[in-house]
Amino acid sequence: MQKVVMIGAGNLATQLSLALHEHGIEILQVYSKTVESAKALAGKLDCSFTISVKKIEKNADLYVFAVSDKALPSVLDEILVPIGNVVHTAGSLPADIFENYAENYGVFYPLQTFSKERKVEFSNIPICIESNSMKLRTDLIELAGQISKSVHLINSEQRKQLHLAAVFTCNFTNHMYSIGQKLLAEKDVDYELLKPLILETAQKALQLDPVSAQTGPAVRFDEEIMNSHEKALKHSPVFQKLYRFVSESIYKMHKGK
Amino acid sequence: MQKVVMIGAGNLATQLSLALHEHGIEILQVYSKTVESAKALAGKLDCSFTISVKKIEKNADLYVFAVSDKALPSVLDEILVPIGNVVHTAGSLPADIFENYAENYGVFYPLQTFSKERKVEFSNIPICIESNSMKLRTDLIELAGQISKSVHLINSEQRKQLHLAAVFTCNFTNHMYSIGQKLLAEKDVDYELLKPLILETAQKALQLDPVSAQTGPAVRFDEEIMNSHEKALKHSPVFQKLYRFVSESIYKMHKGK
Repeated sequence: MQKVVMIGAGNLATQLSLALHEHGIEILQVYSKTVESAKALAGKLDCSFTISVKKIEKNADLYVFAVSDKALPSVLDEILVPIGNVVHTAGSLPADIFENYAENYGVFYPLQTFSKERKVEFSNIPICIESNSMKLRTDLIELAGQISKSVHLINSEQRKQLHLAAVFTCNFTNHMYSIGQKLLAEKDVDYELLKPLILETAQKALQLDPVSAQTGPAVRFDEEIMNSHEKALKHSPVFQKLYRFVSESIYKMHKGK
Repeated sequence: MQKVVMIGAGNLATQLSLALHEHGIEILQVYSKTVESAKALAGKLDCSFTISVKKIEKNADLYVFAVSDKALPSVLDEILVPIGNVVHTAGSLPADIFENYAENYGVFYPLQTFSKERKVEFSNIPICIESNSMKLRTDLIELAGQISKSVHLINSEQRKQLHLAAVFTCNFTNHMYSIGQKLLAEKDVDYELLKPLILETAQKALQLDPVSAQTGPAVRFDEEIMNSHEKALKHSPVFQKLYRFVSESIYKMHKGK
Protein backbone atom coordinates (compact mmCIF):
# COMPACT_ATOMS: atom_id res chain seq x y z
CA MET A 1 0.00 0.00 0.00
CA GLN A 2 2.45 2.60 -1.24
CA LYS A 3 0.45 4.89 -3.50
CA VAL A 4 -2.39 6.90 -2.07
CA VAL A 5 -4.78 9.39 -3.65
CA MET A 6 -6.08 11.94 -1.20
CA ILE A 7 -9.63 13.11 -1.92
CA GLY A 8 -9.97 16.32 0.03
CA ALA A 9 -7.61 19.04 1.20
CA GLY A 10 -9.19 20.23 4.43
CA ASN A 11 -7.82 20.07 7.98
CA LEU A 12 -7.89 16.30 8.33
CA ALA A 13 -6.77 15.61 4.74
CA THR A 14 -3.84 17.99 5.21
CA GLN A 15 -2.58 16.57 8.49
CA LEU A 16 -3.14 12.93 7.50
CA SER A 17 -1.44 13.18 4.13
CA LEU A 18 1.51 15.02 5.68
CA ALA A 19 1.87 12.23 8.25
CA LEU A 20 1.69 9.53 5.56
CA HIS A 21 4.15 11.43 3.35
CA GLU A 22 6.62 11.78 6.25
CA HIS A 23 6.50 8.02 6.77
CA GLY A 24 7.41 7.23 3.20
CA ILE A 25 3.96 6.60 1.75
CA GLU A 26 3.61 8.27 -1.62
CA ILE A 27 0.68 10.62 -2.05
CA LEU A 28 0.16 10.29 -5.78
CA GLN A 29 -2.38 13.08 -6.17
CA VAL A 30 -4.63 15.42 -4.27
CA TYR A 31 -8.19 16.13 -5.31
CA SER A 32 -10.12 19.10 -4.03
CA LYS A 33 -13.09 21.08 -5.28
CA THR A 34 -11.14 24.31 -5.03
CA VAL A 35 -7.85 25.03 -6.81
CA GLU A 36 -6.38 26.93 -3.83
CA SER A 37 -6.73 24.07 -1.36
CA ALA A 38 -5.67 21.39 -3.85
CA LYS A 39 -2.62 23.40 -4.87
CA ALA A 40 -1.63 24.28 -1.30
CA LEU A 41 -1.67 20.68 -0.13
CA ALA A 42 -0.09 19.25 -3.30
CA GLY A 43 2.68 21.83 -2.85
CA LYS A 44 3.43 20.54 0.64
CA LEU A 45 3.44 16.94 -0.63
CA ASP A 46 5.27 17.65 -3.84
CA CYS A 47 2.64 15.81 -5.90
CA SER A 48 0.07 16.56 -8.59
CA PHE A 49 -3.45 17.77 -7.96
CA THR A 50 -6.77 17.95 -9.75
CA ILE A 51 -10.10 19.65 -9.24
CA SER A 52 -11.87 17.32 -11.67
CA VAL A 53 -13.23 14.05 -10.31
CA LYS A 54 -12.77 12.54 -13.76
CA LYS A 55 -9.06 13.23 -13.66
CA ILE A 56 -8.46 11.30 -10.46
CA GLU A 57 -5.63 8.79 -11.04
CA LYS A 58 -6.79 5.23 -11.63
CA ASN A 59 -3.76 3.25 -10.46
CA ALA A 60 -3.50 4.06 -6.75
CA ASP A 61 -3.36 1.41 -4.02
CA LEU A 62 -5.76 3.36 -1.85
CA TYR A 63 -8.25 6.20 -2.23
CA VAL A 64 -8.75 8.17 0.98
CA PHE A 65 -11.96 10.18 1.04
CA ALA A 66 -11.30 12.93 3.56
CA VAL A 67 -14.09 15.28 2.50
CA SER A 68 -17.06 16.42 4.55
CA ASP A 69 -19.91 13.96 5.07
CA LYS A 70 -22.09 16.20 2.93
CA ALA A 71 -19.66 16.27 0.00
CA LEU A 72 -18.85 12.55 -0.04
CA PRO A 73 -21.93 11.20 -1.92
CA SER A 74 -21.67 13.75 -4.71
CA VAL A 75 -17.96 13.04 -5.26
CA LEU A 76 -18.72 9.32 -5.33
CA ASP A 77 -21.48 9.80 -7.85
CA GLU A 78 -19.13 11.54 -10.23
CA ILE A 79 -16.65 8.68 -10.19
CA LEU A 80 -17.95 6.60 -13.07
CA VAL A 81 -15.32 3.86 -13.37
CA PRO A 82 -15.07 1.45 -10.45
CA ILE A 83 -12.01 2.23 -8.38
CA GLY A 84 -9.84 0.08 -6.13
CA ASN A 85 -9.52 0.13 -2.37
CA VAL A 86 -11.40 3.03 -0.84
CA VAL A 87 -11.72 4.35 2.71
CA HIS A 88 -13.29 7.38 4.27
CA THR A 89 -12.12 9.19 7.39
CA ALA A 90 -15.50 10.16 8.84
CA GLY A 91 -16.72 9.46 12.35
CA SER A 92 -20.42 9.14 11.69
CA LEU A 93 -20.67 7.57 8.22
CA PRO A 94 -21.04 3.79 7.95
CA ALA A 95 -18.42 1.89 5.94
CA ASP A 96 -21.00 0.58 3.48
CA ILE A 97 -21.61 4.00 1.98
CA PHE A 98 -19.10 2.67 -0.62
CA GLU A 99 -21.09 -0.51 -1.28
CA ASN A 100 -22.15 0.41 -4.80
CA TYR A 101 -18.88 1.99 -5.79
CA ALA A 102 -16.07 -0.33 -4.80
CA GLU A 103 -15.47 -3.96 -4.02
CA ASN A 104 -13.08 -3.38 -1.12
CA TYR A 105 -13.88 -0.53 1.17
CA GLY A 106 -13.40 0.57 4.71
CA VAL A 107 -12.82 3.32 7.21
CA PHE A 108 -9.62 4.97 8.41
CA TYR A 109 -10.76 7.30 11.18
CA PRO A 110 -8.12 9.22 13.13
CA LEU A 111 -9.78 10.42 16.34
CA GLN A 112 -8.37 13.89 16.76
CA THR A 113 -9.13 17.57 16.14
CA PHE A 114 -7.22 18.96 13.19
CA SER A 115 -6.47 22.49 12.11
CA LYS A 116 -4.40 23.37 9.08
CA GLU A 117 -2.21 25.73 11.11
CA ARG A 118 -1.34 23.32 13.92
CA LYS A 119 0.81 20.27 13.31
CA VAL A 120 -0.20 17.27 15.39
CA GLU A 121 1.92 14.35 16.49
CA PHE A 122 0.21 11.35 14.85
CA SER A 123 1.98 8.67 16.86
CA ASN A 124 -0.53 8.85 19.76
CA ILE A 125 -3.67 9.38 17.72
CA PRO A 126 -6.08 6.45 17.87
CA ILE A 127 -6.81 5.29 14.33
CA CYS A 128 -10.04 3.34 14.01
CA ILE A 129 -10.10 0.76 11.23
CA GLU A 130 -12.99 -1.07 9.65
CA SER A 131 -13.31 -2.93 6.35
CA ASN A 132 -15.55 -5.35 4.46
CA SER A 133 -12.47 -7.16 3.19
CA MET A 134 -10.04 -9.13 5.33
CA LYS A 135 -7.14 -8.27 3.01
CA LEU A 136 -7.89 -4.54 3.04
CA ARG A 137 -8.38 -4.61 6.82
CA THR A 138 -4.90 -6.10 7.27
CA ASP A 139 -3.41 -3.56 4.87
CA LEU A 140 -5.14 -0.67 6.65
CA ILE A 141 -3.92 -1.85 10.04
CA GLU A 142 -0.40 -1.99 8.65
CA LEU A 143 -0.69 1.46 7.08
CA ALA A 144 -2.12 2.95 10.27
CA GLY A 145 0.63 1.27 12.27
CA GLN A 146 3.22 3.18 10.25
CA ILE A 147 1.99 6.53 11.53
CA SER A 148 0.48 5.65 14.92
CA LYS A 149 1.03 3.18 17.74
CA SER A 150 -2.68 3.30 18.62
CA VAL A 151 -4.58 1.30 15.98
CA HIS A 152 -8.03 -0.17 16.74
CA LEU A 153 -10.62 -2.31 14.99
CA ILE A 154 -13.85 -0.44 15.61
CA ASN A 155 -17.21 -1.17 14.00
CA SER A 156 -19.49 1.50 12.53
CA GLU A 157 -21.77 1.67 15.57
CA GLN A 158 -18.88 2.10 17.99
CA ARG A 159 -17.22 4.64 15.72
CA LYS A 160 -20.39 6.70 15.59
CA GLN A 161 -20.50 6.71 19.39
CA LEU A 162 -16.81 7.68 19.48
CA HIS A 163 -17.58 10.59 17.21
CA LEU A 164 -20.47 11.65 19.43
CA ALA A 165 -18.25 11.40 22.53
CA ALA A 166 -15.61 13.42 20.68
CA VAL A 167 -18.12 16.18 19.97
CA PHE A 168 -18.74 16.54 23.71
CA THR A 169 -15.10 16.09 24.69
CA CYS A 170 -13.53 18.28 22.05
CA ASN A 171 -15.99 20.60 20.29
CA PHE A 172 -18.16 21.36 23.31
CA THR A 173 -15.13 21.67 25.57
CA ASN A 174 -13.58 24.12 23.13
CA HIS A 175 -16.80 26.11 23.19
CA MET A 176 -16.51 26.31 26.99
CA TYR A 177 -13.03 27.78 26.50
CA SER A 178 -14.48 30.29 24.02
CA ILE A 179 -17.14 31.34 26.52
CA GLY A 180 -14.51 31.70 29.25
CA GLN A 181 -12.43 33.91 26.98
CA LYS A 182 -15.44 36.04 26.07
CA LEU A 183 -16.47 36.51 29.71
CA LEU A 184 -12.98 37.64 30.69
CA ALA A 185 -12.80 40.10 27.81
CA GLU A 186 -15.99 41.74 29.15
CA LYS A 187 -14.19 42.64 32.38
CA ASP A 188 -10.83 43.34 30.79
CA VAL A 189 -9.13 40.27 32.23
CA ASP A 190 -6.42 38.55 30.21
CA TYR A 191 -7.36 35.13 28.73
CA GLU A 192 -3.80 34.04 29.63
CA LEU A 193 -4.97 33.62 33.23
CA LEU A 194 -7.22 30.72 32.21
CA LYS A 195 -4.52 28.73 30.43
CA PRO A 196 -3.01 26.83 33.38
CA LEU A 197 -6.55 25.87 34.42
CA ILE A 198 -7.42 24.62 30.92
CA LEU A 199 -4.30 22.46 30.81
CA GLU A 200 -4.63 21.10 34.36
CA THR A 201 -8.31 20.21 33.83
CA ALA A 202 -7.33 18.13 30.79
CA GLN A 203 -4.29 16.53 32.42
CA LYS A 204 -6.37 15.63 35.46
CA ALA A 205 -8.89 13.81 33.25
CA LEU A 206 -6.05 11.69 31.88
CA GLN A 207 -5.08 10.57 35.37
CA LEU A 208 -8.30 10.53 37.41
CA ASP A 209 -11.81 9.44 36.57
CA PRO A 210 -13.50 12.69 35.42
CA VAL A 211 -16.72 11.96 37.31
CA SER A 212 -14.90 11.67 40.64
CA ALA A 213 -12.57 14.55 39.76
CA GLN A 214 -15.48 16.97 39.26
CA THR A 215 -15.12 20.19 41.30
CA GLY A 216 -17.00 23.49 41.42
CA PRO A 217 -20.32 24.88 42.64
CA ALA A 218 -22.62 22.51 40.73
CA VAL A 219 -21.27 19.27 42.17
CA ARG A 220 -21.33 20.81 45.67
CA PHE A 221 -24.80 22.15 44.85
CA ASP A 222 -23.75 25.57 46.12
CA GLU A 223 -26.94 27.41 45.19
CA GLU A 224 -25.72 30.78 46.38
CA ILE A 225 -22.76 30.86 43.98
CA MET A 226 -24.82 29.38 41.15
CA ASN A 227 -27.51 32.04 41.59
CA SER A 228 -24.93 34.78 41.70
CA HIS A 229 -23.26 33.41 38.54
CA GLU A 230 -26.58 33.22 36.74
CA LYS A 231 -27.31 36.81 37.74
CA ALA A 232 -23.89 37.84 36.39
CA LEU A 233 -24.89 36.28 33.05
CA LYS A 234 -28.14 38.19 32.67
CA HIS A 235 -26.86 40.07 29.62
CA SER A 236 -25.97 36.79 27.87
CA PRO A 237 -29.20 34.75 27.92
CA VAL A 238 -27.66 31.88 25.91
CA PHE A 239 -24.75 31.49 28.35
CA GLN A 240 -27.13 31.90 31.28
CA LYS A 241 -29.37 29.09 30.09
CA LEU A 242 -26.32 26.98 29.33
CA TYR A 243 -24.94 27.64 32.82
CA ARG A 244 -28.12 26.42 34.48
CA PHE A 245 -28.46 23.48 32.19
CA VAL A 246 -24.91 22.12 32.47
CA SER A 247 -24.98 22.67 36.25
CA GLU A 248 -28.16 20.62 36.50
CA SER A 249 -26.62 17.89 34.37
CA ILE A 250 -23.52 17.79 36.62
CA TYR A 251 -25.68 17.60 39.71
CA LYS A 252 -27.85 14.84 38.24
CA MET A 253 -24.85 12.76 37.17
CA HIS A 254 -23.36 12.94 40.65
CA LYS A 255 -26.61 12.25 42.44
CA GLY A 256 -26.98 9.18 40.21
CA LYS A 257 -23.55 7.87 41.17
CA MET B 1 4.81 36.88 56.80
CA GLN B 2 6.23 33.65 58.11
CA LYS B 3 3.51 32.15 60.30
CA VAL B 4 0.24 31.15 58.73
CA VAL B 5 -2.88 29.56 60.19
CA MET B 6 -4.83 27.54 57.65
CA ILE B 7 -8.60 27.59 58.23
CA GLY B 8 -9.85 24.62 56.22
CA ALA B 9 -8.43 21.29 55.14
CA GLY B 10 -10.19 20.66 51.84
CA ASN B 11 -8.69 20.34 48.34
CA LEU B 12 -7.51 23.92 48.02
CA ALA B 13 -6.38 24.25 51.66
CA THR B 14 -4.37 21.04 51.30
CA GLN B 15 -2.56 21.97 48.10
CA LEU B 16 -1.98 25.59 49.10
CA SER B 17 -0.59 24.83 52.53
CA LEU B 18 1.67 22.14 51.10
CA ALA B 19 3.02 24.64 48.56
CA LEU B 20 3.60 27.29 51.26
CA HIS B 21 5.22 24.73 53.55
CA GLU B 22 7.57 23.58 50.78
CA HIS B 23 8.68 27.16 50.26
CA GLY B 24 9.64 27.64 53.89
CA ILE B 25 6.50 29.36 55.18
CA GLU B 26 5.50 27.90 58.52
CA ILE B 27 1.95 26.64 58.81
CA LEU B 28 1.41 27.15 62.52
CA GLN B 29 -1.89 25.32 62.77
CA VAL B 30 -4.69 23.79 60.76
CA TYR B 31 -8.33 24.28 61.65
CA SER B 32 -11.06 22.07 60.26
CA LYS B 33 -14.57 21.14 61.35
CA THR B 34 -13.74 17.45 61.18
CA VAL B 35 -10.93 15.73 63.07
CA GLU B 36 -10.02 13.43 60.16
CA SER B 37 -9.35 16.25 57.69
CA ALA B 38 -7.58 18.45 60.24
CA LYS B 39 -5.38 15.60 61.39
CA ALA B 40 -4.58 14.41 57.87
CA LEU B 41 -3.40 17.83 56.71
CA ALA B 42 -1.59 18.69 59.96
CA GLY B 43 0.23 15.37 59.62
CA LYS B 44 1.49 16.32 56.17
CA LEU B 45 2.60 19.73 57.45
CA ASP B 46 3.98 18.52 60.75
CA CYS B 47 1.97 21.11 62.70
CA SER B 48 -0.82 21.23 65.27
CA PHE B 49 -4.50 21.24 64.47
CA THR B 50 -7.78 22.13 66.10
CA ILE B 51 -11.45 21.58 65.45
CA SER B 52 -12.49 24.36 67.81
CA VAL B 53 -12.66 27.87 66.42
CA LYS B 54 -11.92 29.21 69.90
CA LYS B 55 -8.61 27.37 69.98
CA ILE B 56 -7.29 28.96 66.81
CA GLU B 57 -3.83 30.42 67.52
CA LYS B 58 -3.83 34.19 68.09
CA ASN B 59 -0.27 35.11 67.07
CA ALA B 60 -0.09 34.22 63.37
CA ASP B 61 1.00 36.66 60.68
CA LEU B 62 -1.80 35.57 58.39
CA TYR B 63 -5.08 33.67 58.63
CA VAL B 64 -6.04 31.95 55.39
CA PHE B 65 -9.72 31.06 55.18
CA ALA B 66 -9.88 28.22 52.67
CA VAL B 67 -13.32 26.92 53.59
CA SER B 68 -16.41 26.78 51.39
CA ASP B 69 -18.29 30.04 50.79
CA LYS B 70 -21.17 28.65 52.79
CA ALA B 71 -19.02 27.80 55.84
CA LEU B 72 -17.06 31.05 55.93
CA PRO B 73 -19.63 33.33 57.67
CA SER B 74 -20.31 30.84 60.46
CA VAL B 75 -16.60 30.32 61.17
CA LEU B 76 -16.12 34.09 61.23
CA ASP B 77 -19.03 34.54 63.65
CA GLU B 78 -17.44 32.15 66.11
CA ILE B 79 -14.17 34.06 66.18
CA LEU B 80 -14.90 36.53 68.98
CA VAL B 81 -11.54 38.28 69.42
CA PRO B 82 -10.42 40.42 66.52
CA ILE B 83 -7.65 38.69 64.63
CA GLY B 84 -4.80 40.00 62.51
CA ASN B 85 -4.33 39.82 58.74
CA VAL B 86 -6.99 37.68 57.12
CA VAL B 87 -7.55 36.50 53.56
CA HIS B 88 -9.95 34.14 51.90
CA THR B 89 -9.28 32.03 48.82
CA ALA B 90 -12.72 32.19 47.20
CA GLY B 91 -13.50 33.21 43.66
CA SER B 92 -16.92 34.72 44.15
CA LEU B 93 -16.81 36.32 47.63
CA PRO B 94 -15.97 40.01 47.93
CA ALA B 95 -12.97 40.97 50.08
CA ASP B 96 -15.09 43.06 52.43
CA ILE B 97 -16.83 40.02 53.87
CA PHE B 98 -14.14 40.49 56.58
CA GLU B 99 -15.03 44.16 57.18
CA ASN B 100 -16.49 43.64 60.68
CA TYR B 101 -13.94 41.08 61.77
CA ALA B 102 -10.49 42.38 60.93
CA GLU B 103 -8.73 45.62 60.18
CA ASN B 104 -6.53 44.30 57.39
CA TYR B 105 -8.11 41.84 55.05
CA GLY B 106 -7.85 40.62 51.53
CA VAL B 107 -8.07 37.82 49.02
CA PHE B 108 -5.51 35.22 47.95
CA TYR B 109 -7.23 33.35 45.10
CA PRO B 110 -5.27 30.67 43.27
CA LEU B 111 -7.06 30.05 39.97
CA GLN B 112 -6.83 26.29 39.60
CA THR B 113 -8.78 23.07 40.16
CA PHE B 114 -7.55 21.14 43.18
CA SER B 115 -8.01 17.56 44.27
CA LYS B 116 -6.46 16.10 47.38
CA GLU B 117 -5.08 13.14 45.43
CA ARG B 118 -3.36 15.12 42.69
CA LYS B 119 -0.36 17.33 43.41
CA VAL B 120 -0.26 20.48 41.30
CA GLU B 121 2.73 22.56 40.32
CA PHE B 122 2.01 25.95 41.91
CA SER B 123 4.63 27.91 39.99
CA ASN B 124 2.35 28.53 36.99
CA ILE B 125 -0.89 29.04 38.88
CA PRO B 126 -2.23 32.60 38.65
CA ILE B 127 -2.69 33.97 42.17
CA CYS B 128 -5.16 36.85 42.34
CA ILE B 129 -4.48 39.33 45.15
CA GLU B 130 -6.72 42.01 46.61
CA SER B 131 -6.57 43.90 49.91
CA ASN B 132 -8.00 46.93 51.71
CA SER B 133 -4.53 47.67 53.11
CA MET B 134 -1.52 48.73 51.10
CA LYS B 135 0.84 47.00 53.55
CA LEU B 136 -1.07 43.71 53.46
CA ARG B 137 -1.35 43.89 49.68
CA THR B 138 2.43 44.19 49.37
CA ASP B 139 2.94 41.33 51.83
CA LEU B 140 0.46 39.12 49.96
CA ILE B 141 2.14 39.83 46.62
CA GLU B 142 5.45 38.84 48.17
CA LEU B 143 4.01 35.70 49.70
CA ALA B 144 2.31 34.70 46.44
CA GLY B 145 5.56 35.41 44.59
CA GLN B 146 7.28 32.77 46.69
CA ILE B 147 5.09 29.98 45.33
CA SER B 148 4.09 31.29 41.89
CA LYS B 149 5.51 33.41 39.10
CA SER B 150 2.01 34.48 38.06
CA VAL B 151 0.76 37.03 40.63
CA HIS B 152 -1.99 39.52 39.72
CA LEU B 153 -3.84 42.38 41.38
CA ILE B 154 -7.48 41.63 40.59
CA ASN B 155 -10.48 43.43 42.07
CA SER B 156 -13.56 41.63 43.42
CA GLU B 157 -15.64 42.19 40.29
CA GLN B 158 -12.93 40.84 37.99
CA ARG B 159 -12.28 37.92 40.31
CA LYS B 160 -15.95 36.99 40.30
CA GLN B 161 -15.88 37.00 36.50
CA LEU B 162 -12.70 34.88 36.54
CA HIS B 163 -14.46 32.38 38.75
CA LEU B 164 -17.44 32.29 36.40
CA ALA B 165 -15.13 31.80 33.41
CA ALA B 166 -13.37 29.04 35.36
CA VAL B 167 -16.66 27.24 35.94
CA PHE B 168 -17.19 27.07 32.16
CA THR B 169 -13.56 26.33 31.35
CA CYS B 170 -12.91 23.76 34.04
CA ASN B 171 -16.06 22.38 35.69
CA PHE B 172 -18.22 22.34 32.55
CA THR B 173 -15.35 21.04 30.45
CA ASN B 174 -14.78 18.23 32.92
CA HIS B 175 -18.47 17.41 32.70
CA MET B 176 -18.09 17.08 28.92
CA TYR B 177 -15.28 14.58 29.57
CA SER B 178 -17.58 12.68 31.95
CA ILE B 179 -20.32 12.53 29.32
CA GLY B 180 -17.82 11.32 26.72
CA GLN B 181 -16.67 8.58 29.05
CA LYS B 182 -20.25 7.53 29.83
CA LEU B 183 -21.20 7.40 26.13
CA LEU B 184 -18.21 5.20 25.30
CA ALA B 185 -18.97 2.82 28.17
CA GLU B 186 -22.46 2.30 26.68
CA LYS B 187 -20.89 0.82 23.52
CA ASP B 188 -18.01 -0.90 25.26
CA VAL B 189 -15.37 1.46 23.92
CA ASP B 190 -12.33 2.23 26.08
CA TYR B 191 -12.18 5.78 27.54
CA GLU B 192 -8.42 5.67 26.81
CA LEU B 193 -9.24 6.40 23.17
CA LEU B 194 -10.49 9.88 24.11
CA LYS B 195 -7.38 10.92 26.03
CA PRO B 196 -5.19 12.20 23.16
CA LEU B 197 -8.18 14.25 21.97
CA ILE B 198 -8.77 15.74 25.42
CA LEU B 199 -5.12 16.79 25.68
CA GLU B 200 -4.85 18.14 22.13
CA THR B 201 -8.06 20.18 22.51
CA ALA B 202 -6.60 21.85 25.61
CA GLN B 203 -3.14 22.39 24.12
CA LYS B 204 -4.68 23.87 21.00
CA ALA B 205 -6.58 26.41 23.11
CA LEU B 206 -3.28 27.55 24.62
CA GLN B 207 -1.83 28.25 21.19
CA LEU B 208 -4.76 29.30 19.00
CA ASP B 209 -7.78 31.48 19.71
CA PRO B 210 -10.47 28.96 20.74
CA VAL B 211 -13.21 30.67 18.71
CA SER B 212 -11.21 30.33 15.46
CA ALA B 213 -9.99 26.85 16.44
CA GLN B 214 -13.55 25.50 16.77
CA THR B 215 -14.15 22.35 14.72
CA GLY B 216 -16.98 19.82 14.49
CA PRO B 217 -20.51 19.56 13.11
CA ALA B 218 -22.01 22.56 14.95
CA VAL B 219 -19.62 25.18 13.58
CA ARG B 220 -20.02 23.71 10.06
CA PHE B 221 -23.78 23.58 10.73
CA ASP B 222 -23.83 20.00 9.48
CA GLU B 223 -27.49 19.28 10.25
CA GLU B 224 -27.34 15.69 9.09
CA ILE B 225 -24.68 14.68 11.63
CA MET B 226 -26.30 16.76 14.36
CA ASN B 227 -29.66 15.11 13.79
CA SER B 228 -28.12 11.68 13.77
CA HIS B 229 -26.22 12.45 17.02
CA GLU B 230 -29.40 13.71 18.66
CA LYS B 231 -31.18 10.55 17.61
CA ALA B 232 -28.36 8.47 19.11
CA LEU B 233 -28.95 10.30 22.40
CA LYS B 234 -32.66 9.56 22.61
CA HIS B 235 -32.17 7.37 25.71
CA SER B 236 -30.36 10.21 27.51
CA PRO B 237 -32.76 13.17 27.33
CA VAL B 238 -30.48 15.41 29.43
CA PHE B 239 -27.48 14.83 27.15
CA GLN B 240 -29.73 15.17 24.10
CA LYS B 241 -30.98 18.59 25.21
CA LEU B 242 -27.46 19.59 26.11
CA TYR B 243 -26.21 18.49 22.69
CA ARG B 244 -28.73 20.65 20.90
CA PHE B 245 -28.23 23.59 23.20
CA VAL B 246 -24.42 23.72 23.08
CA SER B 247 -24.49 23.19 19.31
CA GLU B 248 -26.83 26.16 18.93
CA SER B 249 -24.58 28.25 21.15
CA ILE B 250 -21.52 27.33 19.03
CA TYR B 251 -23.37 28.20 15.86
CA LYS B 252 -24.58 31.53 17.26
CA MET B 253 -21.12 32.52 18.47
CA HIS B 254 -19.63 31.82 15.05
CA LYS B 255 -22.38 33.55 13.15
CA GLY B 256 -21.82 36.56 15.36
CA LYS B 257 -18.12 36.69 14.52
